[in-house]
Amino acid sequence: MTPLFKSLCVVGPGLIGSSVLRRAKETGTIAGTLIAADTSPPVLERVRELDIADVITSDPAVAAQADCVMICVPVGAVEEVARQVLLYMKPGSILTDVASVRGQLGPTIHAILPEGISYIPGHPMAGTEHSGPDAGFSTLFEDRWALLVPPEGSDPEAIAKIEALWNLCGARTKTLSDEQHDQICAMVSHLPHLLAFTICDTADNLSDEIRAAVLDYAASGFRDFTRIAASDPVMWRDIFLANREALLGTLDRFMADTQSMADAIRNGDEAAITGRIERGRAIRRTLIENRQA
Amino acid sequence: MTPLFKSLCVVGPGLIGSSVLRRAKETGTIAGTLIAADTSPPVLERVRELDIADVITSDPAVAAQADCVMICVPVGAVEEVARQVLLYMKPGSILTDVASVRGQLGPTIHAILPEGISYIPGHPMAGTEHSGPDAGFSTLFEDRWALLVPPEGSDPEAIAKIEALWNLCGARTKTLSDEQHDQICAMVSHLPHLLAFTICDTADNLSDEIRAAVLDYAASGFRDFTRIAASDPVMWRDIFLANREALLGTLDRFMADTQSMADAIRNGDEAAITGRIERGRAIRRTLIENRQA
Repeated sequence: MTPLFKSLCVVGPGLIGSSVLRRAKETGTIAGTLIAADTSPPVLERVRELDIADVITSDPAVAAQADCVMICVPVGAVEEVARQVLLYMKPGSILTDVASVRGQLGPTIHAILPEGISYIPGHPMAGTEHSGPDAGFSTLFEDRWALLVPPEGSDPEAIAKIEALWNLCGARTKTLSDEQHDQICAMVSHLPHLLAFTICDTADNLSDEIRAAVLDYAASGFRDFTRIAASDPVMWRDIFLANREALLGTLDRFMADTQSMADAIRNGDEAAITGRIERGRAIRRTLIENRQA
Repeated sequence: MTPLFKSLCVVGPGLIGSSVLRRAKETGTIAGTLIAADTSPPVLERVRELDIADVITSDPAVAAQADCVMICVPVGAVEEVARQVLLYMKPGSILTDVASVRGQLGPTIHAILPEGISYIPGHPMAGTEHSGPDAGFSTLFEDRWALLVPPEGSDPEAIAKIEALWNLCGARTKTLSDEQHDQICAMVSHLPHLLAFTICDTADNLSDEIRAAVLDYAASGFRDFTRIAASDPVMWRDIFLANREALLGTLDRFMADTQSMADAIRNGDEAAITGRIERGRAIRRTLIENRQA
């Protein structure tokens, strides 16, 4: 079978990027030649040791030779990397990124796109709390969703190719507008992370006695929050800032709901308390049915 | 080896109680005779089918014949059950409970204790989101903590026996005051549950489109919150109400911390954002070292 692309370049082979490379290497169906590009010599050295790319480079001109260039750097650096590789990309090739916040990224990059090059970003809703080339694995995207956010008027053939790429990685795909994407991610990912970071911070600020106890007795609830709170600080800082509007809006609703729950507890309103708890259970049940739990 | 107790009665063989019975049945070291008591005929029928008790009864007078009576009912019902069994308990026996909030329970029951009976409550910091006799398993308490909260002046021999009981269940023990216990549990267990219930509620109140998307794309953070949000509503309502003072105090601190995080995001204060995230990571690392992650 002919691979989907003659060559695929991953710029930024971290958790996501190195997982794509591993999958492509294992299956052989995604690209004939795999290129890994990064500005960090230790990262490139690690990619070489892991043997997950055919070509390893720090040169944007080499990266741009691929007929699909996938930018997997933190949200805040995507635009700059796109500007660099677009200088060299050839007509008929596709630029994509995996940025977890869209904001103005789509329109901005679309506006600087040379004739004949498509820009079809897609955000795989998968991850762990680990980062770097060692953190990746080839099954990371299995049964997960990749959210495609192509600019209006994108070439349908290019969209179909990026869909096929994610399907070959094991993921299901859905196409959304930038606004829908950012709203949804604020709720399912950014707000939970913000709360997880904050509850750890609250625990950290308690008296030494209570703080020590929290560490000893974390089993009953607290530790479920800390797993996601172990994630990369710079990546999450960038995400919070890039999606600040949708995130702060969702946080406002959450704070209002928390205040109602606190009022119900203060006033001993049993029905209001159990009502909220019941809704949590219903959502959990649906998640299990949807194989997302 | 002679078992720790001649007979042990579990009143309320749910997740915790049936796990103690399973452990006692499997090891034979905890009690010679196992009694299960409950007011619900279907629960007693299920205990009979599971074959985890020698005697099954709905009669407090039968329950009270054990030389250790362990009350495993929801927090709000402990006092009433204690009053019933204390009418029949014999001198030299021990009453214990596993209530996850102490509040005034200790002093209240201590005050009605007949001569010669010890009251040594202990709260095992273990659980799952499931409930009922089928939810229990014999290794539930392994490597977890049981927090003993004996009233002042309790018989040291009775304390040692309840410690031994939890050690035989696989748990480590620590002795705390009622106030320490409730403060700690507010932080490590009650606040995380309150937030988990509330974030599910917030998701539930969104537009149908976003709500459906939340269910589809829960993988990246949201679902970690929903596991604990699947817990029993009545149990948690009782816990929130019983520990309302410590819980609302801890929630206030959390809300203030969340507000600071929101302000840092609104103002683009990168250092403040990463500072909070770094603290979350540090706590997570310590949890892993403490084998609680």
